[in-house]
Parts: sequence; C-alpha cells; structure tokens
Amino acid sequence: MRLGARTAHILGGGDDGWAIYYRTREMVEAGERVLNLTIGEPDIRTDPAILRAMHESALAGNTGYTFGAGKRALREAVAARAEARTGVPTSWREVVITPGGQAALFAVHMVLLSEGDTGLYCDPYYATYPGTIRATGAAALAVPTRPEDDFAPTEAAIAAAARAAAGRARTLLINTPNNPAGTVYSRATLAGIGRAAAAHDLWIVSDEVYETQVWEGTHVSPRALPGLAPRTVVVGSMSKGHAMTGSRLGWVIGPQEVVEAVTTLATSTTYGVVPFIQDGALFALRQGAAFEAAVAAPFRRRRDLALALLAGSEAVRPVPPQGAMYLMLDIRATGLSGTAFAEALLARERIAVMPGESFGAAAAGHVRVAMTIADDAFAEAIRRLERFAADLARGGSADPRPRAAVSRPDG
Amino acid sequence: MRLGARTAHILGGGDDGWAIYYRTREMVEAGERVLNLTIGEPDIRTDPAILRAMHESALAGNTGYTFGAGKRALREAVAARAEARTGVPTSWREVVITPGGQAALFAVHMVLLSEGDTGLYCDPYYATYPGTIRATGAAALAVPTRPEDDFAPTEAAIAAAARAAAGRARTLLINTPNNPAGTVYSRATLAGIGRAAAAHDLWIVSDEVYETQVWEGTHVSPRALPGLAPRTVVVGSMSKGHAMTGSRLGWVIGPQEVVEAVTTLATSTTYGVVPFIQDGALFALRQGAAFEAAVAAPFRRRRDLALALLAGSEAVRPVPPQGAMYLMLDIRATGLSGTAFAEALLARERIAVMPGESFGAAAAGHVRVAMTIADDAFAEAIRRLERFAADLARGGSADPRPRAAVSRPDG
Repeated sequence: MRLGARTAHILGGGDDGWAIYYRTREMVEAGERVLNLTIGEPDIRTDPAILRAMHESALAGNTGYTFGAGKRALREAVAARAEARTGVPTSWREVVITPGGQAALFAVHMVLLSEGDTGLYCDPYYATYPGTIRATGAAALAVPTRPEDDFAPTEAAIAAAARAAAGRARTLLINTPNNPAGTVYSRATLAGIGRAAAAHDLWIVSDEVYETQVWEGTHVSPRALPGLAPRTVVVGSMSKGHAMTGSRLGWVIGPQEVVEAVTTLATSTTYGVVPFIQDGALFALRQGAAFEAAVAAPFRRRRDLALALLAGSEAVRPVPPQGAMYLMLDIRATGLSGTAFAEALLARERIAVMPGESFGAAAAGHVRVAMTIADDAFAEAIRRLERFAADLARGGSADPRPRAAVSRPDG
Repeated sequence: MRLGARTAHILGGGDDGWAIYYRTREMVEAGERVLNLTIGEPDIRTDPAILRAMHESALAGNTGYTFGAGKRALREAVAARAEARTGVPTSWREVVITPGGQAALFAVHMVLLSEGDTGLYCDPYYATYPGTIRATGAAALAVPTRPEDDFAPTEAAIAAAARAAAGRARTLLINTPNNPAGTVYSRATLAGIGRAAAAHDLWIVSDEVYETQVWEGTHVSPRALPGLAPRTVVVGSMSKGHAMTGSRLGWVIGPQEVVEAVTTLATSTTYGVVPFIQDGALFALRQGAAFEAAVAAPFRRRRDLALALLAGSEAVRPVPPQGAMYLMLDIRATGLSGTAFAEALLARERIAVMPGESFGAAAAGHVRVAMTIADDAFAEAIRRLERFAADLARGGSADPRPRAAVSRPDG
C-alpha cells in the first residue's frame, strides 16, 4: 500500500534534522553517560505549584471537551499579557489557545497558505520550520541571512526571496529571540521586515516563544510596529518561558479572522486543548514577570559562563547570544563541518550538540549548544568541547573512538 | 490581508454542523436551563484515580517533551489490548499515540492522501469527517448508505463512489460502532468493505472509538479480517471508553510505515503528547475490561429506557442502536426536517438535540440524541420530545416561543 506524498514532501529529501538527538537518546536509554546539549528542554521540571493547579482543576471536574478557541479566562490572560508587553490593545478575541507552540506554527501556516503558495522562513532556522510549511502542502523557501547581520533577515533579502517565489510567497516566518542564532531582532530590523512584507503583501508569522529570554537589548514584537499588526500573527508558548514543555500549551495572537480560521481548523485537528492544563497555564501566567525571570535566569548565567570559558579560544568562536537558551559556536577553525564535528564530539567525548547544518546553510560550520544542563556539567562540557576543538585545529584526528569516560550527565 | 483557501475548503460551503450545539452552549452560559443532548460527552467526569495517576507522574518529573510516537509502555499497552481484542498479532511499533482520536483521524488522512486525491467516508457520518479529509487539501466524497442496510456501506456503494472519484479515491473512512446511526458493522459488512477496498486499492481508516459500547452483536475490527490488516489503519481513543474526553489521548494502529509517517508529521504538528497524560492513560488501560464496562453501562441503560418510552410512538421512531452512545430518532412523521425539528425543540422545550442533517443526507429527517445526561432527566427529555413531536404530527405549530419552564439539566 502506498502512502501519500506528504511525508516525503515534509522531509524535503533530507531527514528531519534530529539524527544526533535521536542517537543521543538511544545511547542514554542504553545506559551510556552523555552530556546532552541537543534540545531546548529546560533542566528544571514544571513547578509543582503549577502541576497542583492543574490537578485541582481536574479534580473539580474540568475533564471534558473544550471546543473552540480555548477558555475565555486564559485567552483574556494571554491578551492582557501581550498588551502589557507591546502596548498594542489586544482583545481575547484575537487569541486562540493551541496544544503547544509547534501546533500554533502549523495551524497558522495551514490557514494562511494555499496549495501552490510559498512560505518564507529565515536561515538559520529552528529545525521544524521548513517541514511545518511543507506539511501544509505549500513550498518552503529560505531567506538567507549573514553572520555580519547577526543572522537577521534584511529587507533586501526578503524582497529577493519574495521575487524568487514569483508572486506566490504569502507568509514570512521570523523568530525573535532567535533559535539557533540568539539574535534579538532590533526595531530597525523589524521595520525592514515590515517594509518588505508590505511591499510583497506577506503575512508576518512571528515566533516569540523565547520572549522571556533576553540577555541584551529588548524584545520587540512586529505587532508593536506602526501598521504591522494587521499583517502579523504571533506564536507564543508556555514551554520555554514557564518550563512547561510537556504540557503542550501555546497560542496564536493575531487578527480576528486568523483566530477564527485557526479555531475552525481545530475542529478537524486538535479538538481543543486539555482544560485542566489550560487552567494550569492560567495559574502560571498569573505568577507574573518575577516567575518568568527566575525560569530564564539559569540560561543567562550559563551564557555568561560559556562566554568567559571560551574567551581567547582560537578553535571555538562563540556567537554571543542576545537572547534564547542556545549558544552558537563557530568551529570552522577545526576544518570540520558542524555535522562532522558534532558526530565526532558525540563519539569521542560523549557530548551531544546539534550540527549547525540542522538549522540551515547559514549556520554551517557551527554547532548549537543548548544551555540546559546544570552549571557544573555545562562548564565541563564547554571546557572539553573547547579542548576537543583545539586538538582538531592543531591537526588532531576526529577518529570516532571514545577517548575518556565521562561524568554523569545532569538529570 | 487574505487568508488561504483552506478554511473555506474545510467548511465546504456550509457551516461546521454544530450550530445547535453552539447556540445551546450560549444559552447555558446565559443562565438558561437546557436539557443538552447534543454532544458525545459522558456525563461522568474522568475517574479521580486516573487523575491522581497523571498528577503523580507529573510530580515525579514527567513534564518534559515526549517526541516521537509516544511512550513505549503506553504503545505496548495499546498494542496488547488490540491483540487481545482482535486476535491479530500487534507490535508496539504499529502504534503511535496522538493527542486525541480527532488528531489521529487528521494525521492518518494527512499521510495517506495527497493533493488531488479523494477520501471517501460513509453517510451518515460524524460531523467532523468531511472537514477532516478536506483539511488535508484532498476532496471528500460520501458513500451513501440506506436505513434498510442499518446505515452500513455496501460493497456496491463503495465501488460506485470509488468509480465516481475517477481513480483518485485512496482512503475509505468507516466508523463502527457508528456515530450517529448506532450500527455495529457485521463481519459480512466488513467483508464487503474489504472486497471493495481491495478492488479499488483503498486504505480502510477504521474509527473504533466506540468499541467498548456494544449493545447488540460483537465489535469486529477490519484488521481482524483475512488479508485486511495491511490496508487497515485503526483510530482509537480514551475519550469515550474511559470518560477522558478532555485528556486528548488517542492512537493510530496500523502498518509500521503509516505509524512512522504519522510520527514524522507529529514533528511538524503536535510535537508529542503530554507525558503525564500518557501515564494516566496507561493507568486507565490497566484497569481492564470491567472498568470499561462500567463506563459504558449508563448508555446501555438509557438506550433501553428510551426504546421502552418510545415504543408505540407514531411520531417518533427510534433506530435501535446496536452500539455507541447516541440514539437516532426518525421524526419525519412531524413533517419537519431534522434541523427544523431540532430548532423548534430547543426554542419551545429547551431540549437540545442534533439535527440528522449535521451528519449527512442519509440522516435527514432524523435527530440524534446523545444519551449523556442522568437517567431521570434523560427520561424526561425523551417523554417531552415525544409529546412535542406527537403534537406536531397532529398538526400542531412549531412556533419557536418557549412553552414551559424546564427542570435543571444534569451537570
């Protein structure tokens, strides 16, 4: 029996970019000790107070269907928070709750793109982006960025991509703070994006799931720029800001017709979001900015730690992140690709990082380090990664035989 | 700004079929008392022991991402249960966990259908079916059924629909026990479906979410018929069988390449299923058949109650359900359509039922009653519905002014 064409279209002739992560997981499951710096999973667990709020809601009987756009109180809380952060008046009718940020990204592209359309995204990119656009049946086209622009897209590059799509580009997916590059888009960058979007009649899909993780500058949403709100759809999530990755709770903020279309799609796809998790998310949002800052603090601390440890390294040049929980390391001095370096590092040092190539052509020759293990283990990983790279840069071998036993990874 | 074409394609020129339900919900929210027999929501809440299992799992730290096809232990439990019920050897590798049965239906059609393909479904149908098929970008085509065949599809009708699709039909969606008709497909019916599917090279997508609710005969999955397993994909869920509608936990059982494709799609859509809910579902499945029978018992009891109350009615002819939690009532003797009858009943009697027309052309002139309120209130609703219909059949008016105050609906 034949499958449809979609799965191959999603993969786009490659794999899903997570090969190193899957191998790491297999090694860990087989009992091997690996320092796992692959994925954006906060090392803290979801706060027990949030879990208790969920449980109390469930015991109180909130265990039935929640059709539609989500619970009114949660939509109001998300709208109020967005309004407070952006200054843009935001109604709860402009919010739809989704089972996670990824589900929000998918739903938005499903309702904005038609068959034959093209969705633009910026390279480097979070690994699911092109597959998410292609899952809708549309084509995905990368807007290249350059290290000298902090990997942020320029007006000219967006315009060139839109022209290359021959009038079929309908959406532009951006991500600030950026995974993997750590860039926090400036107001000037966003203004350029807005001009290009207006000139080519593009929706701006703004993935802002790292909005609470800003180490330099200020997070600005394109919704807050003059004239951009009507063409901007924001994706948010509890995963990173509130350490609730497993709870699968996200949202879309945008013009009401987009919210209504996403809600219609939900009847065919998700059938609503777990009601007691919605209540837990509402409880978590009510903890306010201090709680969010506490969740973000370890990443800021580890960022500073890594930059200090790598200062002066000739083999590993960090791209100092302005935000988000990752650190991009330029390892081109080793002579290896990001993929070859990551594979050798896993095999020899039992340290797992993501190849830059998993995130696009612009990040080739880099690896992405998730700053998601305890400080001591994190510092150990950075030190050993640097020594490994320095050895390679001096002409050492990338022979994939293990070199040393390693310490126990963080929980 | 223009949306894409998908939302309009999903709706197919109509609404989503739930207008009466939405209006009922608004009335209830406005403080009105309505006997609500619209949706398939068990009136019991999720068992507190299951909720405690979820909470204990969450407190133990199961709050992170669960990529991929779901937790191995849950996949094994679903596979073992399927094997025990069907006699078909079933590996955990043939199971993928989804956030609910609706998400499973969507994902299966996403991976089996390509642009330009047609997905078949049987009329009458669960209201989301055509929209779910169309959400993938494919066309949806109904296979008509007849009351004299218990609303089950015949080999000839399927073959005719496949021919009408001019070689583009790739899937056939069936549902046993059936919502709304209550039919439990016989082995002979399934054999006919299998022959038609083989002749036209169709996947059989078998929605078996009501498999624990069988009042006459035996539930048979097409997977259990000789030669059909390789072309059959089963959709299951905890919603109806374990009163866990809000937990959004379902699954797909099928050939490994389908499971792998659904897993690939999940990376772009759901990003896994809440881990502590997976653990709660595992706990619930381990309660075994006695627990499932206890959840099903009220529906069997109310079915028998309604059939007794309606025996001898000339205005309302029940279609005795062999399974599932609904009762189809033929109200053509009133001279009204199902939609007009349901609207008048809501306006005059504050009793909410679904028009048969929400479920397709075959169910026109019927209404669907969800047997999901406490026995006393249910009996009151059936009695008053019958009197209302009898009055209409005798030439009474369907004037939509309320006739009487009503008693408080079940929680």
